[in-house]
Amino acid sequence: MTQPVVFVTRKLHFNAAHRLFNPSFSNEKNDEIFGKCNNANGHGHNYEIEVTVSGQIDPETGYVIDLKVLKDIVDRLIVEECDHRHLNFDVPWLKGINPTAENLVVAFWNRLAGSFKQGKLHVIRLYETERNYVEYFG
Amino acid sequence: MTQPVVFVTRKLHFNAAHRLFNPSFSNEKNDEIFGKCNNANGHGHNYEIEVTVSGQIDPETGYVIDLKVLKDIVDRLIVEECDHRHLNFDVPWLKGINPTAENLVVAFWNRLAGSFKQGKLHVIRLYETERNYVEYFG
Amino acid sequence: MTQPVVFVTRKLHFNAAHRLFNPSFSNEKNDEIFGKCNNANGHGHNYEIEVTVSGQIDPETGYVIDLKVLKDIVDRLIVEECDHRHLNFDVPWLKGINPTAENLVVAFWNRLAGSFKQGKLHVIRLYETERNYVEYFG
Amino acid sequence: MTQPVVFVTRKLHFNAAHRLFNPSFSNEKNDEIFGKCNNANGHGHNYEIEVTVSGQIDPETGYVIDLKVLKDIVDRLIVEECDHRHLNFDVPWLKGINPTAENLVVAFWNRLAGSFKQGKLHVIRLYETERNYVEYFG
Amino acid sequence: MTQPVVFVTRKLHFNAAHRLFNPSFSNEKNDEIFGKCNNANGHGHNYEIEVTVSGQIDPETGYVIDLKVLKDIVDRLIVEECDHRHLNFDVPWLKGINPTAENLVVAFWNRLAGSFKQGKLHVIRLYETERNYVEYFG
Amino acid sequence: MTQPVVFVTRKLHFNAAHRLFNPSFSNEKNDEIFGKCNNANGHGHNYEIEVTVSGQIDPETGYVIDLKVLKDIVDRLIVEECDHRHLNFDVPWLKGINPTAENLVVAFWNRLAGSFKQGKLHVIRLYETERNYVEYFG
Repeated sequence: MTQPVVFVTRKLHFNAAHRLFNPSFSNEKNDEIFGKCNNANGHGHNYEIEVTVSGQIDPETGYVIDLKVLKDIVDRLIVEECDHRHLNFDVPWLKGINPTAENLVVAFWNRLAGSFKQGKLHVIRLYETERNYVEYFG
Repeated sequence: MTQPVVFVTRKLHFNAAHRLFNPSFSNEKNDEIFGKCNNANGHGHNYEIEVTVSGQIDPETGYVIDLKVLKDIVDRLIVEECDHRHLNFDVPWLKGINPTAENLVVAFWNRLAGSFKQGKLHVIRLYETERNYVEYFG
Repeated sequence: MTQPVVFVTRKLHFNAAHRLFNPSFSNEKNDEIFGKCNNANGHGHNYEIEVTVSGQIDPETGYVIDLKVLKDIVDRLIVEECDHRHLNFDVPWLKGINPTAENLVVAFWNRLAGSFKQGKLHVIRLYETERNYVEYFG
Repeated sequence: MTQPVVFVTRKLHFNAAHRLFNPSFSNEKNDEIFGKCNNANGHGHNYEIEVTVSGQIDPETGYVIDLKVLKDIVDRLIVEECDHRHLNFDVPWLKGINPTAENLVVAFWNRLAGSFKQGKLHVIRLYETERNYVEYFG
Repeated sequence: MTQPVVFVTRKLHFNAAHRLFNPSFSNEKNDEIFGKCNNANGHGHNYEIEVTVSGQIDPETGYVIDLKVLKDIVDRLIVEECDHRHLNFDVPWLKGINPTAENLVVAFWNRLAGSFKQGKLHVIRLYETERNYVEYFG
Repeated sequence: MTQPVVFVTRKLHFNAAHRLFNPSFSNEKNDEIFGKCNNANGHGHNYEIEVTVSGQIDPETGYVIDLKVLKDIVDRLIVEECDHRHLNFDVPWLKGINPTAENLVVAFWNRLAGSFKQGKLHVIRLYETERNYVEYFG
């Protein structure tokens, strides 16, 4: 029998510094494009990351995916790597990436996709502030 | 003339106890699968339920559905039944269901679908905590 | 090379008065349909508006659209026009519209669509209160 | 035996229109002092009101005051009177008061003080927006 | 030299079931006093607990108390004991206490007071829901 | 006649990087005391700052202090200086201060005190995250 398909979301957070900057731009162009986000010493955010996995409900457990498993995967692959770090310098798999919210959410997708044995990754939503967020569906 | 299609959402809440538990599992397996959610005396949540109805705007009222009507339907069919209850024992139409968020959101859909004369049920989102939620589109 | 498509959202707010009212209805019918929302002197809300733009990431900037540009467009076309106003009387492009959340979100879409050089307008979400919101996808 | 003194708070909300205006000022002075808050047709807010009552815990009930009683008093005396109203015109006991948050919180205090048989009124906090609030301790 | 006195607050949460009930009352009186909170099988909440410690800033660390230490004390003494439990049955040091928010906040104070080597306990604020909270200053 | 005394609060926010670090400590001791907050390249936060001013209500305006004036003072003296900056390097009046939340809130008080012609500064509350905040009363 087909089980209903449900979307399951877990929200986590991390605190990090970043600087928006394109090394192929002149200083003037970096200032013009990125404004105060280009501050040389960086600035920072309390990032919130929401990861949504979709799948049929397992009739034995009533779960699409155990939320603790979902949390642990995102904790290990994203939060423990990014929390209390400078995203331009301290995270090997972000090296060479200009850490806009758009580029980060794609990098997070690429890192998480393939990690789920139950359900499949549907969307990642990344809040830079309460008033700004981005979403990527792969 | 075709009217624009708009999605209208109303959020309500209820406070309830539950226990995750599969009677066909051994005690050991229930503990292994459900961990602290399997506490014999139950635990509880402030649930938030968001119900979204879609439809064309009625040109006379400017409504897809009167939000008071939407609220009253969800209040009567879900909130008044589940609020301040133990979901494993006190709600007749949840009997025999392991009350994971996934199973609850499907049970709520089945109970609400067919109740709307204006618009049609599009999605139900159920928050167990601020950091965990599930969505079901029928 | 194709760049990933990301959805970018900016949230803004404005405070306004409104009255739900259809001039072709009798007073009795306006009261029956709109209830306390038909109060002759109006009532008001802290509206929250979320505007989502989708598009490919620009490989040079890492942006779909500069969030400051997105914010400035919504500020100029919506917020500066509606903030601290009575929506039935003070906003020329809302004249003749019964200011339900549904009619407002469509009017906001019509006003914003066509303003974006980068990305395209995907959805507008309008909160009347923390517990009520509407969405329009055009 | 002396019981511990605890502070108990209930939050409620109402949606209302208002206009800041001093009839003894010239139009120019009203504009200068109140700016866009002086818009002739008014504007509005989703007000949040938090009422705090302090007192000894009743050893029989474990309550300082039944929160349902506290809620019902504030509902009857404040929310039902102000919700979906224009505060300059529609509320008899606010007549002649310039409805700044400061003047409102004092008027609410005067209306609530003396209504509590258990505990005593300690503070009222009134949010005009998420970013502005006032507090009055009587 | 005297250092400035600062108040430092850490918020944590736990999910628990409870039932309001006085064993010396008749069933009828329990129903009359506690209403739906007296549901025999219990109901539940996402509790939020805020613990505030005050003290002089240590000039070497810039801390009143290391927030990680504060968090660990509250986690060990309160959260690990109450999370995913039924407060009437599962927590030895709450036995015999009718678990109203008022009684809980006093029990939490008594359990935490004396645990801080740096700073002193100033207030505990306990949210039962987003709209209800209690505070105890010892 | 004496006017009622009301407390008026305005919340603002800024995004900044910081590093907790005492130059008189060895590297080992900095690591031991500050843990991941001592990351050499810094990390960051979305800070929220709430400034409360108390005073008698002006009977002509109904204000303790015009909230726009309060906002402009905090914007000019704090937010414009700290937003999108690294607090260890980019803010002259924070030089030599280890930017813990405790030290920041005292520095903000010293910078704001004396700036208010109406009312007087009562308390500053600084949120580093949604779960951590500090308060200083001068």
